Amino acid sequence: MSSIKRFAEGVSFPQGFLTAAVRAGIKEKGNDLGLLFSEVPCSAVGFFTRNNFKAESLLVTERHLRSGSAQAIVVISGNANCANGQRGLDDARLICSKIAKSFKIKTSEVLIASTGKIGIPLPIAKIKRHIPRLVKGISDRGSLEFAQAIMTTDTFPKQCAYLVADRIKIGACAKGAGMISPELATMLCFITTDAKINPLLLKDIVAEAIDKSFNRISVDSEQSTNDTLLCLANGCSQIKVKKGSSLYRYFKKALESALRELSLMIVKDGEGASCVVKIAVLNAPSKLLAEKVARRIAASCLFRASLSGRQPNWGRLISALGTIEPPLGRNIDIYYGNIKVVSCGKSSYQKMDRVRQYLKENNEFLIRIDLKRGKKDFYLYTTDLTPKYVELNQC
Amino acid sequence: MSSIKRFAEGVSFPQGFLTAAVRAGIKEKGNDLGLLFSEVPCSAVGFFTRNNFKAESLLVTERHLRSGSAQAIVVISGNANCANGQRGLDDARLICSKIAKSFKIKTSEVLIASTGKIGIPLPIAKIKRHIPRLVKGISDRGSLEFAQAIMTTDTFPKQCAYLVADRIKIGACAKGAGMISPELATMLCFITTDAKINPLLLKDIVAEAIDKSFNRISVDSEQSTNDTLLCLANGCSQIKVKKGSSLYRYFKKALESALRELSLMIVKDGEGASCVVKIAVLNAPSKLLAEKVARRIAASCLFRASLSGRQPNWGRLISALGTIEPPLGRNIDIYYGNIKVVSCGKSSYQKMDRVRQYLKENNEFLIRIDLKRGKKDFYLYTTDLTPKYVELNQC
Repeated sequence: MSSIKRFAEGVSFPQGFLTAAVRAGIKEKGNDLGLLFSEVPCSAVGFFTRNNFKAESLLVTERHLRSGSAQAIVVISGNANCANGQRGLDDARLICSKIAKSFKIKTSEVLIASTGKIGIPLPIAKIKRHIPRLVKGISDRGSLEFAQAIMTTDTFPKQCAYLVADRIKIGACAKGAGMISPELATMLCFITTDAKINPLLLKDIVAEAIDKSFNRISVDSEQSTNDTLLCLANGCSQIKVKKGSSLYRYFKKALESALRELSLMIVKDGEGASCVVKIAVLNAPSKLLAEKVARRIAASCLFRASLSGRQPNWGRLISALGTIEPPLGRNIDIYYGNIKVVSCGKSSYQKMDRVRQYLKENNEFLIRIDLKRGKKDFYLYTTDLTPKYVELNQC
Repeated sequence: MSSIKRFAEGVSFPQGFLTAAVRAGIKEKGNDLGLLFSEVPCSAVGFFTRNNFKAESLLVTERHLRSGSAQAIVVISGNANCANGQRGLDDARLICSKIAKSFKIKTSEVLIASTGKIGIPLPIAKIKRHIPRLVKGISDRGSLEFAQAIMTTDTFPKQCAYLVADRIKIGACAKGAGMISPELATMLCFITTDAKINPLLLKDIVAEAIDKSFNRISVDSEQSTNDTLLCLANGCSQIKVKKGSSLYRYFKKALESALRELSLMIVKDGEGASCVVKIAVLNAPSKLLAEKVARRIAASCLFRASLSGRQPNWGRLISALGTIEPPLGRNIDIYYGNIKVVSCGKSSYQKMDRVRQYLKENNEFLIRIDLKRGKKDFYLYTTDLTPKYVELNQC
């Protein structure tokens, strides 16, 4: 028995899940209403942005998730439904209730996610008009249409699927390209599985997987108001995942792989990005400090701009490291790939040509910062900063 | 008697100060070695970056300043002399000692500042070769040549001069355009005055003026390793500034005006910038929180990109405000100019066209954030983020 198998292509959703997508005219072109539906009620868990200005859609979903059960997810792309006050809450509830009625389920069994412009009310008349067609279009034809409908500035749909122990399927899709940073990154992610699993256990597994995936990416250090990750487990495989079993370990590993895969897709699709950079902070006295250092570097526009020019400018790394409180001290080593460019805080300027070559010949880079003060590590993926990123966001 | 007079043009240094500038071939073109000399020893005070990776030049200057006295400042532009270890310290000391010998003063009477690329040793042979010509060129012809020699990515020289109570002159010049942020901004600034003043009193006056000028600007939220502000008072006017006198108040006010003027010039010359934005945070429970909010907004690439596109995207302000810890709550008002776009956390999307017009018709903007939770305010000047900023820094 192979424990975990990745579906190479033609991603198929786990048993009992159906999807649909239609265009309601919310974003400029393409489908912008997505629906995910399970034939039976699911264990449901959700994770959300830590931004304190949570979108109204999220507030409604958080409330609906209290029961630990859900059966449908509706996704709006092109409008964040954020900062819309009472109207935003009413609109989100109305959409959930319309869908619930169509499926003859409770309103609280419907979750809602949204992504797009902040501060503009939902075009609720349009959305209401298209809900019947959305519900009617539900099918098991596959998830690509759904993965495409949730896209905003993404340049490609992001999905993957895994088979666990030949018996359980996990499907996952995500969107995200900008406003990607701390705590969940700015994105929507929907995970489905036909495993039978207790929502509390599911929540633990998903939380751990997020910590190793979506919490390890940053595009622009901006934190969205709409980050949402929802996971539905409908039990249709009839296989129960119990804590401590080998199936549990496989399931956990597969879920981690799926989220890691999606999070790397998001970085690769980072707005305007021309490369992916792994920032690894080594030998810190605490994981927290290692993380702080990695995030500080990922937040440096100047360092990220030098990468887009493929120029060896570790002076900007030094400058960024120097802003961290409490002070790291000067006993730091810095590597571009395997090339040590700073040793105990002193620059090896002779290596500039070698680093320039390393940057010219690759588009995935590794930057290592060795603090030499402990045994804790942290890594983070980010992108370079290009003029195109700014152009894309002059809106 | 007019208390404070600003020299409209043709900035002349205070009595007893001489300057010189030559090209040593450190930066690509133009003069890159500047020298400021007082005919008599001065009360001398200095303020430096809080970056923990201070340039070696700064470390030498800090040591030389311990006596509270100095007579010369040498400035290198095109090389930061940072992260060069012992060699960087030796080079900086050697340059000071060469200049000291020429003037027959103590090495510790010479201060050194540098700006440019980090991590590359100074071209010390070149510099040594040009020092005699630099010293020989010293004159009272004016400071423009000096102000030009210290420039790096600046597009114009920055200087101003004031006459206090018809008797005391203050001259000030600065450089800076990128890496401009918290604590002193990334810049070099040199202030001269012929007032007679105790170095401790001078330090207090300058510190207060910095708090209202250079600590109120941010271009890219990056903090340099080389920020240096030096002030020399040579007493040549024979007029003593004593604490509490009316002369003291005028002197203080003139110094504040000079630094505010220079700091605004730096923002206007911000790399790639197409506009200046004043961010005013009002009615916070503490000045510290107001400052945190202002700096968070100035650090938002997404908000700054929307300004360069002259697009009304206050969603990005909301999103940035939502990341502040501890949470601000949702009871926040936001204004573009006099247009209230967010009221108690709720967006007034109807105002989008008015704001678009405001942004199209101006290139100096006021963004007000009213927290409605106290009586403390803070303001900060920043710029927009343009594709050109990134292009300029792809090096």
